[in-house]
Amino acid sequence: MPMQMPIDAAMEAVRNQMPEKRWRHTLGVVDSAVRLAERFGENIEKTRAAALLHDAAKAWPVEKQRQAILADGDPAGLEALEYDKELWHAHAGAWTARRDFGVEDADVLNAIRYHTSGRIGMSRLEKIVCLADYIEPGRDFPGVDRLRELAAAATLEEALLEAFDGTLRVLLERRRIIFPLTVLARNDLLSQIRSGGY
Amino acid sequence: MPMQMPIDAAMEAVRNQMPEKRWRHTLGVVDSAVRLAERFGENIEKTRAAALLHDAAKAWPVEKQRQAILADGDPAGLEALEYDKELWHAHAGAWTARRDFGVEDADVLNAIRYHTSGRIGMSRLEKIVCLADYIEPGRDFPGVDRLRELAAAATLEEALLEAFDGTLRVLLERRRIIFPLTVLARNDLLSQIRSGGY
Repeated sequence: MPMQMPIDAAMEAVRNQMPEKRWRHTLGVVDSAVRLAERFGENIEKTRAAALLHDAAKAWPVEKQRQAILADGDPAGLEALEYDKELWHAHAGAWTARRDFGVEDADVLNAIRYHTSGRIGMSRLEKIVCLADYIEPGRDFPGVDRLRELAAAATLEEALLEAFDGTLRVLLERRRIIFPLTVLARNDLLSQIRSGGY
Repeated sequence: MPMQMPIDAAMEAVRNQMPEKRWRHTLGVVDSAVRLAERFGENIEKTRAAALLHDAAKAWPVEKQRQAILADGDPAGLEALEYDKELWHAHAGAWTARRDFGVEDADVLNAIRYHTSGRIGMSRLEKIVCLADYIEPGRDFPGVDRLRELAAAATLEEALLEAFDGTLRVLLERRRIIFPLTVLARNDLLSQIRSGGY
């Protein structure tokens, strides 16, 4: 079992930490991630745990997120602390997943930690949670239907590359800061696709 | 004097190492860079030296570029050696600028070294050479006229941000690897523009 807490209790605990809209999003990600896990042969229980907990810290006050990252001590989290506030909830989420939900599985923790940015060398589970976060039924943005089609018919890498590249295009258009980690992640996906190495 | 070699001899030496088309490009970059230096109050001789030498190693055989980078030993060059072949000529160019043309000025060397990728914390001279490389009269790509307008009327940072973002859009469109350094450079320009800190 990836979580030491029973799933019903975990769902209640996650739900109590976020507004209703975020909870509906979370259920959507769980649903989409489990479908992807079935399609790509990933462990369903791990997928469910990672998806359920991916935004567990999203609604926390920023200062609580910061304290969690400091307590967690993960180098990627500490680096995010320097400049990427939008990534904090993912690292704080990995911390609460371990401390409060008893998740010890490194792959599940990484799927939570890197669900927003991605990174080089993403595991199948990391890719699934990241992609599910883009395509869950509540999402509505230009290109989301195309992403859903790719998620249902293309490789996991092709679908996630399209998702990342769409994000990068939007950030360019809106003149926003781009996470370097996301660029490294999409370069890595591109290399995997070219080499067939996935 | 930024170069120990007289300018006529330096021009001849650069010209002899590249095909005619690359030499015309080099003269175009010198011309555009000097105009930008006049507009933005940069040292003209340094600008001329950096622009003249920016592609000095571009036509070298790849193995000669690699040897130059190893001899040079600069960490950024050694990192480029690992994966960014398109950046090699810039680092090899910095090496030949110092060894063969007697350039000791760190700003001139950095303007050569980072003219393709950009980097965080680019100096005014680095920005000028990088932008000149985009807008010199021989260049013809979608958006180049817009860049020339910005170079003539906007801040150096606004013009270079537009240039980098155009490159990133093309790389996304063509599904090509994106240099992380260019992303860091454009994020940094964006921060400078927002804070007015240039």
